[in-house]
This record gives sequence, C-alpha cells and structure tokens, in this order.
Amino acid sequence: MSRIAYVNGQYLLHSEAAVHIEDRGYQFADGVYEVFALHRGQMVGEKGHMERLTHSLNELRIDWPISRRALAIIIREVARRNRVKDGLVYLQITRGVARRDHPFPKDCESSLVVTARQLPPLDKEALRQGVGVITIPDIRWKRHDIKSVSLLPNILGKQQAREAGAYEAWMVSEDGMVTEGTSTNAWIVTKSGQLVTHNVSHAILNGITRLSVLEAATGAGLSFEERPFSVAEAMEAKEAFVTSSTSHVKAVTSIDGESVGNGHVGELTGQLLDLYVDFIEAKGGPANTSIWN
Amino acid sequence: MSRIAYVNGQYLLHSEAAVHIEDRGYQFADGVYEVFALHRGQMVGEKGHMERLTHSLNELRIDWPISRRALAIIIREVARRNRVKDGLVYLQITRGVARRDHPFPKDCESSLVVTARQLPPLDKEALRQGVGVITIPDIRWKRHDIKSVSLLPNILGKQQAREAGAYEAWMVSEDGMVTEGTSTNAWIVTKSGQLVTHNVSHAILNGITRLSVLEAATGAGLSFEERPFSVAEAMEAKEAFVTSSTSHVKAVTSIDGESVGNGHVGELTGQLLDLYVDFIEAKGGPANTSIWN
Repeated sequence: MSRIAYVNGQYLLHSEAAVHIEDRGYQFADGVYEVFALHRGQMVGEKGHMERLTHSLNELRIDWPISRRALAIIIREVARRNRVKDGLVYLQITRGVARRDHPFPKDCESSLVVTARQLPPLDKEALRQGVGVITIPDIRWKRHDIKSVSLLPNILGKQQAREAGAYEAWMVSEDGMVTEGTSTNAWIVTKSGQLVTHNVSHAILNGITRLSVLEAATGAGLSFEERPFSVAEAMEAKEAFVTSSTSHVKAVTSIDGESVGNGHVGELTGQLLDLYVDFIEAKGGPANTSIWN
Repeated sequence: MSRIAYVNGQYLLHSEAAVHIEDRGYQFADGVYEVFALHRGQMVGEKGHMERLTHSLNELRIDWPISRRALAIIIREVARRNRVKDGLVYLQITRGVARRDHPFPKDCESSLVVTARQLPPLDKEALRQGVGVITIPDIRWKRHDIKSVSLLPNILGKQQAREAGAYEAWMVSEDGMVTEGTSTNAWIVTKSGQLVTHNVSHAILNGITRLSVLEAATGAGLSFEERPFSVAEAMEAKEAFVTSSTSHVKAVTSIDGESVGNGHVGELTGQLLDLYVDFIEAKGGPANTSIWN
C-alpha cells in the first residue's frame, strides 16, 4: 500500500507530496506542528492537541488554513487512507508561500500538510525496558510553549543522545534546572517519593501525554508537584521517566550513565503507565486543555 | 521573463519549484542558507559566503550536496538565467529528505535550492536616508554563528519592527548588550567618535558586509573596536548604522524613537558607505574569511 499525504487540499502519494521552495516553513521555520497518537484506532488527546495548536497559531499570528472542524475530518481521513490504527498523524501548518522577506507577507494563505504512519501498538513490556538519558545545555529559543518547527537544537540534542547510546537528552537551563527532553517531557520521583515534572511556562512544551498522566494520577489519588527540578535532584531521584505521544510513559533508568534509584524501572513509573493506558482508553485524553503557558 | 530556480539538479520554473514535505528543512529547520549580493554584475564577497557556508555545514554536520566548485557554477548560472545584475542569489542547503525522526538520518542526501532576484541597484542616496530601529529581547537560540534557517524569532522581531514603523529590530541579550539586528549587523559611532560593532562570537552572525566594512575602514586608516555595546551606549552614540548584503551600509537615525546624534545621517556612516562601495568594486569582498566564531 502506498502512503498518502494531504497537502493544501489534495490527497497525494506521499512520495510525490511537495511544498513550494518559498514556503515560509522551509525558509524561515515559520510554522507549527502537532503529532497525534492513534491507539487502537482512536485519536488520543485530540482536544488537547487542537487547543495547543490554537495557542501556537495565535502566538505566531498564523491563520488557520481551514476550519478546525474540517481539519479534524482531514486528520481522520489521512489516518484512514493510510490504514493507521496504532501510530501517529503528523500535522504541519506554515504561514504559507511568499517571496522571501522577513516580515509577515500580506495576502498569504497558510499551508497545511498532514501525514500518517503506522507504528507498533503500545507495548507495556517494551516501555518498561528502562532507557538512558543524557543532560545537555538548553540552547533553544525562549518560547518552548509554541510548538514550532524551529527544531534545530532539538535534533542536535537528540543526535547527541543517540551517539551517547541514550534514548533522549534532557535540556538544562542556565540555572541548572531540567526543562524537558528534546521531544519528551521529563519526570522524576524524588528521594522522598514525590512525583515531579516542570511546571507550565515558556520553558517547556506542555505535552498532551503530560496532561493525561497528571489527570490519571489525580484520578488515582496520587499527588504531584509541578516545578523545575535540578540535575542534582534528578541524579538522586528514586525513579525517572519521559512522556510524549509516541514514547507514552517510558522508564528512564540512567542519567548521564549513572543509575536512577536501583537501576530498575520504578514502581510508581510502572503504575503511571498502567494508569495512563487505562485513562486514554476510558477518557480519550485530558479534559483540562486550556493551559498552554 | 519567468523566474528560474535550481532544485536538486534541475533548473525549474520558480512557480513550480518544490521540495518534498519530509525535507528536513521543512520539518526541523535542519538547514542553512546564504544570500549573495550581486553588484553591477559581480558577486560580492563570494569567498566569504562560501567559507561561512562551510562553517555552518560543518557545525551541523550536513554534507555538501555537490562540490563547492560546482556550487559556484550553479550560483552564477541561476543569476544568469534570471538576468540578475544587481540583486541577490539565495542558496539553501538542508540535510535532505527522510522519514520524520529527530536524529540525523542515515543515507540521506543533502538538498540544494538556489534562487535569484533582481533588486534596484545600490543607491547611495537611498541608503543615506536614515531609518529607525527598535530594541527587543534576544530570544533566539545560542548559535547565531550558524546561518541556519531556524529564523522564527528573527521574523517575529522584524515584524515587530515594521509594526513600530522601524526598519529593523536590534536584539538585546539578557545582560543588556545589543547583539545584532534580525537580518543585519549593528554598528555605532560612540560619543567619543569610536566605531564599534559586536565582536565575533556565538552571539552574532559574522556578516560578509560587516567584514568588508572592517577591511575598508582599515584600508582608510580608520580605527574600530569589536566589542558588545549596550542599549544605553547606543542611545548616546553620535551615529549608528546597519550592514547586510542587501542593506549595504544603511544609516540609522533613531533608536526606539529617540534620535541618534543630531538625527541626521552621521559623517562617518556616510564615509563608510563610500569606502564600502569602493572596496567591493575594487576587491570584490573581504580577504579575511576564516573567522566564523
């Protein structure tokens, strides 16, 4: 079966899907994106992704290329045409095509690209295989709350992680605090047993999976703190994990080569994975979707 | 006459020139660019642009899509096919097309796009019409020495300038120093008459026009200091100007709405414009092209 992509009104063979060389996404990183997970044929956290997309577009003053309702239909149609039951839908909106010049062009129509890809179904056993993370300086721009395609520092960080044999790189601000991973949110369970993840601010992208885990934890009567944590605190933590639409809740068992806790997947991490899967299967995604910075 | 663009081995109608939706330039801002000025049919500062391109590619570990020699031929050919005598050639190289995933893909061929555009010839009278700049926080990532397409903060800054009726926005680091404009280098002539521009570091892009002006000044026996200057120092300066391949040496007569010096184009600024034009016409561009950070 050939992959199908949606590009500005047309469903095209993925291999032939193209955008103009003066699309501002290509020349200026002037665009935003979302990655929707599909789990057993259901969209996960659709409302949250749409609200966050709204935030990103508003902050950059990029127009919706089509209505939110039409976009929801296209996302489903791209998943359907690619027969994706478990996997992801990738959506990118840019300011559109215009003669190259820095200021916002006049009379420019936003570009929309939607693709989908099958992935192996969520596998709890695999997620419970612990992975390593490294820590690197956070050299990104200062608006991480906007899910822009300005991802160059993220890919450099991810590459550095892979070359170090690690799954992810946690980015550390100048004051020594872990902000987030290059494509995931970062979590620890402190020495005293407290679940902690960075609070919502311009310093992180508020993950949909992050929100689901927080709501699932609340539902199970678990407490948590939303605040920055230092590398030192993470090194002393009992447990650690990362979350994202495609990493779900993934156990972290080493930081910069040092074991986290006893080096095995933590008890609370395992519990949160179960709670998360139950939550998305029951609720579809987070209800609280209005807080983006 | 239709514009012609070069895209990965082919000369195409500009209107039909496209790149794949999974070009990493589009999805990750994983690419670099250069803008070459043409002045009276001659390429300005070609060696400098090529050396800087080499630096950008090396820092990001992106392969040359073709040899530097072949690239030089293509740049000329694109200018020729578009009949550009005064104007610019835009060149963009990205890591290429690969299934979307953050780490560097294996076996990926770099993408190359080259376009050209006619502009009005360099007009000293117009450049001596002073323009205004505003100052804004520098929220960019920390590797400004790499000329990447990760330009989202730059376009937001330029847009902010335009909405304030200004030509450019000067970006100010957390310690209050002007780094550079969103697409130009920033210069002042201090109260005591000293020519100053930010030193080369990761905090600025070392402009080819900047280098030409420094060499032209040296040739004329003018002294200068390469160091950061604060907004306060700029507000008290006698003169100010910006440089870039397309702004050349452009007088700045107001900063955040306050007049610079007597509000008229400064004497040294006018002299440097003359020296710059003489320099590029005689020398073609800077000789010292080895310092990129």
